[in-house]
Amino acid sequence: MIVEYDGTGFSGWQRQENAPTIQASLEDALRQMTGVPTVIKGAGRTDAGVHALGQVAHFDTEANIPLHGFRRGLNQLVSRQISVADVFEAAPDFDARFSARGKLYRYQIWNRDSRRPHLERFAWHTPRALDAAKMHEAGAFLVGRHDFAAFRAADCERRTTIRNVSRLAVTRENDLVTLEIEADAFLKNMVRIITGTLVEVGWGKRVPQNLPELVAGGDRTKSGVTAPAMGLTMVRVDY
Amino acid sequence: MIVEYDGTGFSGWQRQENAPTIQASLEDALRQMTGVPTVIKGAGRTDAGVHALGQVAHFDTEANIPLHGFRRGLNQLVSRQISVADVFEAAPDFDARFSARGKLYRYQIWNRDSRRPHLERFAWHTPRALDAAKMHEAGAFLVGRHDFAAFRAADCERRTTIRNVSRLAVTRENDLVTLEIEADAFLKNMVRIITGTLVEVGWGKRVPQNLPELVAGGDRTKSGVTAPAMGLTMVRVDY
Repeated sequence: MIVEYDGTGFSGWQRQENAPTIQASLEDALRQMTGVPTVIKGAGRTDAGVHALGQVAHFDTEANIPLHGFRRGLNQLVSRQISVADVFEAAPDFDARFSARGKLYRYQIWNRDSRRPHLERFAWHTPRALDAAKMHEAGAFLVGRHDFAAFRAADCERRTTIRNVSRLAVTRENDLVTLEIEADAFLKNMVRIITGTLVEVGWGKRVPQNLPELVAGGDRTKSGVTAPAMGLTMVRVDY
Repeated sequence: MIVEYDGTGFSGWQRQENAPTIQASLEDALRQMTGVPTVIKGAGRTDAGVHALGQVAHFDTEANIPLHGFRRGLNQLVSRQISVADVFEAAPDFDARFSARGKLYRYQIWNRDSRRPHLERFAWHTPRALDAAKMHEAGAFLVGRHDFAAFRAADCERRTTIRNVSRLAVTRENDLVTLEIEADAFLKNMVRIITGTLVEVGWGKRVPQNLPELVAGGDRTKSGVTAPAMGLTMVRVDY
């Protein structure tokens, strides 16, 4: 199924004790429908506060419910911050996480002195002027197959830090700066650390040519801040 | 000043007893800054739940505060659902309401079976399929100088119901249907009743050719429902 959410009030995708999560909300709704506790597995474990327009998740069930029945039932039972956009029958060996060949993430930055209430939940507000062209130039150094060790959270547990970034674009439309990044897979906080680093380029605190050094050094302490969660949306998963 | 707001939590623009309003929030903040109670007058009294990207408001003050000081101070003191985007010095005879020559409103409709959490606060969700081309065709009958008595709230107190609509466009981009309407001035609930009527055209419950009859009849009970407030945004005021 394809799942959208406003992640503002959630502690991320993955089920946790005593904290509201997208996975738990969907699993609780599915259990109400089928009577059977069922694990719902997502393509990516979005962090607390991160949104989705195209999270993909799968589950196995023997319930005799038509596909549109799952969609309607789940949408009636989950909170209005979550929406099941589509439900498909998948091949028996399909796995939302391990079958994924790539993902697209979008990070939005509201770059004006004053806030924009319409984007309050979905964009990072940073008033200091950003040079989006410089950010794009810096981002181009990250496209390709690289070691992204400098761009992952300290507690990231992935064994390999090699990832293939197929596209990284930074664009500006009036006061809204948007970063889009596609890769085969992402390390923990990778998009937010890349964004935080490119924002420092946009502010003039770093030059674009600093990026190849950062990649080569593989040192998280040399890259930028982790941009806040609210600007980030998982847009699409490719299979 | 130009004011933006997410109107979701407010009982509209105009100050009321015991209800949060945009005007009251701004006036309270201004009083904190200047020490003097000052009326802030808006170009339009948006209803409860209606948003703005370009509300215009004015006030008279003798406070010795620079323009950017007003902007920054008000933004620090008002809630995050309100933003003062710009503050200018106006001519002595400027009046945000009476000097206005026209306004642009936008109404957003999310037209898919499932909700879109990203638009939850800013679009009306109506799952039944809308024919946006038919809605646009119907809307064209409202462009020009007409009597809009059939498109105003029962308690609207304006003396004349003649208004000049200079543009009315209904467009679809994937599952989002957007209505934009520009006029010299609007009657109470006029945009929402026009939207509700055009939505009935989009559903096939009315034909576009019904619109000239509705205008000629001037009977509110013959036009459509008042579309809900959350889809409406005051985009711009022209002087």
